[in-house]
Amino acid sequence: MKVVKIALLGFGTVSQGAFNLLKDNYELITNRTNVDVQVTKIFVRNPDKYSHITLPAHTTYVTDVNDVLQDDSIDMVVELMGGTTFAKDCVEQALKSGKNVVTANKDLMAEAGPYLLDLASKNNVDLRFEASVLGGIPIIRTLYDSLGGNKITELVGIMNGTTNFILSKMTDEGLGYEEVLKEAQELGYAEADPTADVEGLDAARKLAILASISFNRRIFFEDVTVEGITKIDKTDIAYGKDFGYNIKLLGIAKETNKGLSLNVYPAFVPIQHPLAAVRGSYNAIYIKGNGIDDAMFYGRGAGSLPTGSSVVSDIMEVAKNIDYNATGRLKPFYFDQKNIYAPGKIESSYYIRLVVDNKIGVLAKIASKMAEQKISVLSVAQRNDHPDKAILAVVTSKCPRSYILNLIDSFNSLRSVQKVSSVIRIMED
Amino acid sequence: MKVVKIALLGFGTVSQGAFNLLKDNYELITNRTNVDVQVTKIFVRNPDKYSHITLPAHTTYVTDVNDVLQDDSIDMVVELMGGTTFAKDCVEQALKSGKNVVTANKDLMAEAGPYLLDLASKNNVDLRFEASVLGGIPIIRTLYDSLGGNKITELVGIMNGTTNFILSKMTDEGLGYEEVLKEAQELGYAEADPTADVEGLDAARKLAILASISFNRRIFFEDVTVEGITKIDKTDIAYGKDFGYNIKLLGIAKETNKGLSLNVYPAFVPIQHPLAAVRGSYNAIYIKGNGIDDAMFYGRGAGSLPTGSSVVSDIMEVAKNIDYNATGRLKPFYFDQKNIYAPGKIESSYYIRLVVDNKIGVLAKIASKMAEQKISVLSVAQRNDHPDKAILAVVTSKCPRSYILNLIDSFNSLRSVQKVSSVIRIMED
Repeated sequence: MKVVKIALLGFGTVSQGAFNLLKDNYELITNRTNVDVQVTKIFVRNPDKYSHITLPAHTTYVTDVNDVLQDDSIDMVVELMGGTTFAKDCVEQALKSGKNVVTANKDLMAEAGPYLLDLASKNNVDLRFEASVLGGIPIIRTLYDSLGGNKITELVGIMNGTTNFILSKMTDEGLGYEEVLKEAQELGYAEADPTADVEGLDAARKLAILASISFNRRIFFEDVTVEGITKIDKTDIAYGKDFGYNIKLLGIAKETNKGLSLNVYPAFVPIQHPLAAVRGSYNAIYIKGNGIDDAMFYGRGAGSLPTGSSVVSDIMEVAKNIDYNATGRLKPFYFDQKNIYAPGKIESSYYIRLVVDNKIGVLAKIASKMAEQKISVLSVAQRNDHPDKAILAVVTSKCPRSYILNLIDSFNSLRSVQKVSSVIRIMED
Repeated sequence: MKVVKIALLGFGTVSQGAFNLLKDNYELITNRTNVDVQVTKIFVRNPDKYSHITLPAHTTYVTDVNDVLQDDSIDMVVELMGGTTFAKDCVEQALKSGKNVVTANKDLMAEAGPYLLDLASKNNVDLRFEASVLGGIPIIRTLYDSLGGNKITELVGIMNGTTNFILSKMTDEGLGYEEVLKEAQELGYAEADPTADVEGLDAARKLAILASISFNRRIFFEDVTVEGITKIDKTDIAYGKDFGYNIKLLGIAKETNKGLSLNVYPAFVPIQHPLAAVRGSYNAIYIKGNGIDDAMFYGRGAGSLPTGSSVVSDIMEVAKNIDYNATGRLKPFYFDQKNIYAPGKIESSYYIRLVVDNKIGVLAKIASKMAEQKISVLSVAQRNDHPDKAILAVVTSKCPRSYILNLIDSFNSLRSVQKVSSVIRIMED
């Protein structure tokens, strides 16, 4: 049986998850691949930090990365350090010296994925990155292989566990954003500085990677229009529930006849849609294609073992390729011309919440402003529990965002409108 | 660019779906595989039947299958005829003569999958069968590759669209089984003889194929204990809703410390479980593994283009393997000893509906019979809308099926129990 020797760069949560699966499922993995995968080196800065972990006899820590990169016996480098400078240097060097690479580095793949895939292909080695997005959900391989014969028309994902945890808890328990964020931080679900998650930046990076594969174009983080969840109010969540919606932070890539639109924003998802049932820290990707019609892939978007599972599946694939002399087969799919469609032009239904004077005739004024903009009312809910003001929530027909911005201006021009409190998109069913 | 020549055997719904995707997505598929896939022959009994379909110049109908099997220019045979006799002969001959095979034939793979996979492996060619189960959902490849590093502990699926359509409609519209079955037959969702679907036989065949891959053992249809949906009553569905459950026909393979249990039966799924949201003719597979924790794969379980999409993804994979001289790599995973665990011993919560006398003290008698069997009551609902009888629905704690059978005997021995109407398992959350 062929022995394939691998080195792990970094030994944090995901690396230990992959290491443990390779150890605990050794017999299974060997039987399935017909290859003996051995971790021979683990590169870390300070091995003392890991003295509580027992390594097999054939595994040693190294503190100089050149002990990996210049070791000809190592067939595969598994980069699990994160970051885009030192990690990028290591991956580049590994590929150039004919070593296969597996990485879980989202930032690296979002920034330099196309370049690195080209480099791997030129050097006839594999570069696999299943674990770089959505942890345990096998979405990269699914897009490349299983759905490869489909023209993908739309990809919608709940791609960030922190925000889904926060929004689910706000929905289930009727709590406010700040309160739930604080709890998420205490539980370790949110970082001390939660910006990357709650402002949608993390989701936008994942969307860029997935859209690049799905739509055969080089998409970067900068191409995605991003809006976070910090302004979502529990009042809106309650109204949404009454209208039959759950609030979710969505990453959406959609092919239109005018180009590809790429957005991250919070939206109301109709409760009968499978994405509406994705709760807590789970992630899911919903895909439409001209063959499959629609499909959804759901699971753990993070965590030591789930993400480790994706790393191990890549290691197994590369090990089999090495055994069959068939590495270097994963070509980047960047043959289509890139054209991004401005999000202002995308049509959607909208939920709008207003604070208005508690007077007869206000609804009529609101409705006539909508009629002037050629927008119809799909649903309306009004609560008059205060002598001076009433809350009015409306769901509009589908229209471009620019119409909605005009509508809001015209609402603001009405003396009986005290405030336009919220404007939230509604996902198409 | 390498040209890979393929022949389709049969030109029914799925075959035409695959053919149309290969044609409509030709540029995409060629770019993604870097191979020019050409359908050169289509074997049919009567080409006149397809005179309305325009074929490309390089494609011809043949009415003798030997024109395919003995044609050395054909690299890949795509078997889409169905059946287990002639189809099996064709697949065997193709593999033996060094041709790669793609099939969508569930019955063939359930009956002879292990043998045919061995045969392919011996002849260094590929045998792919993604489309043989669950139409457009890419589950075979996911189990083989993406989750390959996981010890799968449980696989639960909604694997039959006909029964899910029927149960969803009964649930949504409060209709009875016979009424909905008739409508499903009129709409073409159910066959004139619906036995294979409604008695769970189709689901059992799919479960056998999926369990074979997931649990590394040769599992056959006969190993699965099967119960259909014909006895499901709309009254039970209504009670289930009140308790927070949706009824589904589930295929369940579960590793226990005493062996593998394999069952198809209708069960109540807690509404917060992702499988509960799988509606209408959709299918889904929910999987637990020691790496991924849990994941779900959802989509169209049938249909011309969705199933065609799975056929095309296999064709693309095989075409790339041919281009890289890397065929024959998909080994069957049958290295574990087979031990099936008797379903009578599997623990579950149960829903039991009784018709009892409308008298004081009946609930106390029921409860004491349960206490005697060491089964506790998780929920209870009683409706007394008739002078002589009352309906009592109870949800039990988890216990082996044998306890429940004893409990039902003891209920039947009570004079105040008129009838035990229904006994339905509850899926573990």
